[in-house]
Amino acid sequence: MAERTTPEKQTRIDLQRARERSEVDIALVRDFLHGGRKQWEEHAGMVGLLSQDPALSHGQRLYLTRKERYKDSLRLAKRVHELQDEHGWTDAQFRKAMDNMGESSPYFLHFLAFEPVVRSQASDELLAEYSGLMTNRGIIGCYLQTELAHGSNVGGLETTATYVPQTQEFIINSPTFTSRKWWVGAAGKLATHAVVQALLILPDGKNLGPHLFFIQLRSLEDHRVLPGITMGDIGPKAFGGFAAVDNGFAVFDHVRISRRFMLSKFSHVTDDGRYVQPPHAKISYGGMLYIRSTMVTTGGWTAAKAATIAVRYATVRRQGNKSAQGFEEQIINYPSVYNRLLPIVSRSYVLMLLGRNLEKSFAAMSQGLAHGDTSLLADMHAMTSGLKVLVTTSVVQDIETARRALGGHGYSEYAGLGRIYANYLPAATYEGDNFLLDLQVVRAALKAYKRYSSAARPDPLTLPPTARYLRLLSEQSVADKATGGWADPHMSVYLLELRAVHMIREFAKHEADPDASAPQRMSRAATEAFVAVQVESFIKDLASELPGKDAHILADLLNLYLLTTVESALTDLLSFGIFPGCQRPANGDPTRELRRAIKHLELKLLPQAVGLTDAFGFTDWELNSALGVHDGAVYEALWDCVQTEPLNQTEVVDGYHEFVKPVLERGRRLAGRGGAKL
Amino acid sequence: MAERTTPEKQTRIDLQRARERSEVDIALVRDFLHGGRKQWEEHAGMVGLLSQDPALSHGQRLYLTRKERYKDSLRLAKRVHELQDEHGWTDAQFRKAMDNMGESSPYFLHFLAFEPVVRSQASDELLAEYSGLMTNRGIIGCYLQTELAHGSNVGGLETTATYVPQTQEFIINSPTFTSRKWWVGAAGKLATHAVVQALLILPDGKNLGPHLFFIQLRSLEDHRVLPGITMGDIGPKAFGGFAAVDNGFAVFDHVRISRRFMLSKFSHVTDDGRYVQPPHAKISYGGMLYIRSTMVTTGGWTAAKAATIAVRYATVRRQGNKSAQGFEEQIINYPSVYNRLLPIVSRSYVLMLLGRNLEKSFAAMSQGLAHGDTSLLADMHAMTSGLKVLVTTSVVQDIETARRALGGHGYSEYAGLGRIYANYLPAATYEGDNFLLDLQVVRAALKAYKRYSSAARPDPLTLPPTARYLRLLSEQSVADKATGGWADPHMSVYLLELRAVHMIREFAKHEADPDASAPQRMSRAATEAFVAVQVESFIKDLASELPGKDAHILADLLNLYLLTTVESALTDLLSFGIFPGCQRPANGDPTRELRRAIKHLELKLLPQAVGLTDAFGFTDWELNSALGVHDGAVYEALWDCVQTEPLNQTEVVDGYHEFVKPVLERGRRLAGRGGAKL
Repeated sequence: MAERTTPEKQTRIDLQRARERSEVDIALVRDFLHGGRKQWEEHAGMVGLLSQDPALSHGQRLYLTRKERYKDSLRLAKRVHELQDEHGWTDAQFRKAMDNMGESSPYFLHFLAFEPVVRSQASDELLAEYSGLMTNRGIIGCYLQTELAHGSNVGGLETTATYVPQTQEFIINSPTFTSRKWWVGAAGKLATHAVVQALLILPDGKNLGPHLFFIQLRSLEDHRVLPGITMGDIGPKAFGGFAAVDNGFAVFDHVRISRRFMLSKFSHVTDDGRYVQPPHAKISYGGMLYIRSTMVTTGGWTAAKAATIAVRYATVRRQGNKSAQGFEEQIINYPSVYNRLLPIVSRSYVLMLLGRNLEKSFAAMSQGLAHGDTSLLADMHAMTSGLKVLVTTSVVQDIETARRALGGHGYSEYAGLGRIYANYLPAATYEGDNFLLDLQVVRAALKAYKRYSSAARPDPLTLPPTARYLRLLSEQSVADKATGGWADPHMSVYLLELRAVHMIREFAKHEADPDASAPQRMSRAATEAFVAVQVESFIKDLASELPGKDAHILADLLNLYLLTTVESALTDLLSFGIFPGCQRPANGDPTRELRRAIKHLELKLLPQAVGLTDAFGFTDWELNSALGVHDGAVYEALWDCVQTEPLNQTEVVDGYHEFVKPVLERGRRLAGRGGAKL
Repeated sequence: MAERTTPEKQTRIDLQRARERSEVDIALVRDFLHGGRKQWEEHAGMVGLLSQDPALSHGQRLYLTRKERYKDSLRLAKRVHELQDEHGWTDAQFRKAMDNMGESSPYFLHFLAFEPVVRSQASDELLAEYSGLMTNRGIIGCYLQTELAHGSNVGGLETTATYVPQTQEFIINSPTFTSRKWWVGAAGKLATHAVVQALLILPDGKNLGPHLFFIQLRSLEDHRVLPGITMGDIGPKAFGGFAAVDNGFAVFDHVRISRRFMLSKFSHVTDDGRYVQPPHAKISYGGMLYIRSTMVTTGGWTAAKAATIAVRYATVRRQGNKSAQGFEEQIINYPSVYNRLLPIVSRSYVLMLLGRNLEKSFAAMSQGLAHGDTSLLADMHAMTSGLKVLVTTSVVQDIETARRALGGHGYSEYAGLGRIYANYLPAATYEGDNFLLDLQVVRAALKAYKRYSSAARPDPLTLPPTARYLRLLSEQSVADKATGGWADPHMSVYLLELRAVHMIREFAKHEADPDASAPQRMSRAATEAFVAVQVESFIKDLASELPGKDAHILADLLNLYLLTTVESALTDLLSFGIFPGCQRPANGDPTRELRRAIKHLELKLLPQAVGLTDAFGFTDWELNSALGVHDGAVYEALWDCVQTEPLNQTEVVDGYHEFVKPVLERGRRLAGRGGAKL
């Protein structure tokens, strides 16, 4: 410990020592998080291959204009197609490569928003015609839903699809200025085809609301926009987010398409213009829930990236009073730093495990739907809505919390966290604005509450998973369940469930006159109760999934998630008088024991922080952060980055002679020092 | 009300009607906020002149690379210098013009960080030599303090200034890799001179800690970096923030400067190398507090910009179910929207008024310092630290809250809020990282508490302004002070002061073992108590400053600030059992009355929202936001912006032939449709 070295070399030693001190079996935990050794090896192999391809180097991307960067992203996508041919990748492998190529791409929308909708909603005939083309990018698609004046309220869309029986065609039209399709990824410049949401108008003028139509946008010969359609890019996004995606607009001037281009798996229009209804009003919702359900896992991996960068930098950054060895303190050892970063690590783990569960539930629901069983749909809707809100809100905040914990250097583009934030941020708004989804969650909670509380003999087994907490309404003498102390995860789970019960009862009581933030608080309480129960089961399962030491560390980490969730719920718990000790305020602050338990757990986990984040398995190429480099040489990495800055390629800056020299000369003249040698 | 128009025209009508409905006397309130009619007219005149100058048009700025944008900002600065000559502006007018020219600029650092330090710390001789040059930009300066490995801990800086009595010179040197000066605005490419913080080393090797030295960086002949110095730009900032500022690095290789270049107003080194101490250890701190003290007002105006854009857009954006008139609801009428936006309006007002008070306190302290009176320094340090944390934390959050309330379009660069956020964000870190300043606030609070609570006869008149709440420790029967109900501002003020008392007592009790977030909570409680008292006095003063109607509206607005502050403090108030009704949880949620009062006040203020934000007086040119346009024509403004996007200048995108066509052809081939006409 006594050797002296220079500060920029010491960073490597600090990270090395942190790795030696960590007891986490990185390979085992990594395999666990990636769903198995085989999955990890596939992932690592793919990332290794991509990162070593010179054509996919991050290079000078930062310094391009958006127009140049867009072109470069087209180049990257072409390269990944070539790699598919070279390596004989499956479709899934190709998509994995695209997801990991290190740049956003308009092609993502083809996979996420176009192809799944066509596959799930097109008639067999239409699918037969286009399936192969979609799979192989013989056409490239986008999903034209939102309009200039309509996002959340799909019912308010203005674009029309009017059926003309004479020619058996639909006329797709943008009747107003505000009906321009807007924000549609890949529409701006790339897509050749689209699914378009439009109001279906029958020959008798009847408006049947939004339906989906398949439409070609650009020529497959020369890529020019087809007659009757006006398209373009909607301009740069805030914070430089998704610079390489061409979110675009589309305006239709009475464009005619054949009747067969209506996506008519569930409903269709007959030759003569009669409407045939879908068998179940919500049968087509399944696909809409898919994207939301994937957002839990994605959120977990995004928070994990931020946590990895921040934990590594906080381990090597030293600031404060010097020790006897002559070095300042590693900032991760300060309470204000570890208390910000360790909860982010815990949330990353929770979201990954939660995402895996959710994918299983989603598969079960989809299987049911395929047989016409819609019984799981409503609760899956509530569940994905609540989780989407909780996950995106907390991950956005976690990325910024991690960035700010880095101090000044966190504001450098080279830190990488700004980029992660810029691209993740819209998740709080797209796929359902969080504030609107809260209302869906509350509606479901209220419905479950009213049914259960008014039942003659309420049966907990009838409760949907998202409302399991309501069983506490009828179970007796539950108070003794919360006696385990904060080391027992059940203490937190019980409190979070009990809080949801009190919240929904209070909400129902004042349903006619809620305060302005009541839906947000209620939604959060319901979802956090649901998640807490899942986390308790994850903790129980750990012992059978990992060796004792790692299982214990992860159990502590998951319990930290529970404790910090309880801490964030304190206002509710205290206001309903259900927080332990709150009835006896004379004894001092009743929240102190909880906060001491959190600090205690954090101090216990602190030596594991680097191991827990190493176990995410990110490479330096994936993190693309000077502050998150695996070897800890953060200052040298920053210095290397700086050499690539275009402003540094000349000693005297471009513009000096025209714009700076005259100012300096004027100043000298005015100061009466015009001729002086300075 | 019955006429029908198109949605994009209706937006103008909506904003027009909101203006008609508002009772705010915009001219009067605007003058009040700007400090008087004369100040407003000067401001408006300046902005009018700048905005009409074609050379200062926002133009294509968004689409430039950072290098191009930097050059363009040099051009803008030269233009403002020309305007100074044309119009015979004073120095203050010139600075106002620079502040309002609509782009960040490295020149700002000359005014903010270089000139004030030289003026307050240089010897009279040095000042005589450089004063005129500084005033007229015959030299352009920067302030070299932070280093690659040192920001917050100034004591840890590594750069040295070693005195050599033989030549009467200091040798400025960067002895280590990590001692590179880093992050310094204007150092990268523009500055010709600098103040550099370096450890003063005497000939006997004694290290006297950081001192300031004046040094030339670049030649005034050809702008080349002087021998022995290596300089450059540190690269782009996160979110594209401050793109036009050249935050830079500087490395010194034994650069010799004459003894007279030490800034030696307070301490100096004699010819033969003896150190002469300053008269008071902290006498040079005054300047350091200046920037922090200006951050309150700046924060207020920044939040005001965000609030104006968001209130206008939320007034014209319609979404949801259609009314009988065929229009959807204006989104500002939804509780989840007005409950987010109105508190931001209230905080903007509070910060502006608070900033004005702070500037007066600062002037009083400075006057004292000039006569050697340092009695106000310690509390001013605590006050500016606490306010800096509170203001920057809340304004960062408010800008993002406003952006998110705009829904999807808020993520467009054209909305303008992303840009405001990107440039404001580092305020949470610079001029003292917020998490470190919290510790300063807590230290001051603890000191005041210990002194007061241990005094034989505690005298409230001895309490410094930041600790006035401690008088509640000794005043008797204060409980009856909180009986006015939520309409009475004193109810909130009393609770916020009482909370600070409980918090500091609890903090002191567990001083040896605080939980991990205790300093943050304590700092917040102390500062919010201080601000609440000020707000109460603002409310009292309103009646004498504005006519009854406007005074009432503003009183409601300021009371909304107090109520939402109490809401955010609920965990503390409940955990100490001091929130009204919390001892009787059987009566239901005790927080409901507070939340109802907030909603009630918000609904009362809602018709005034557009008037209250119009009264900030921003022009469209200043806001530079398609969603915040004064006439409400947001959709047309977005459409106009989109026409300027470089990607839209060609129908077929650059890159199609090389990178897209081959992919499509490959796809058609693989789909077995190679020859088909599609």
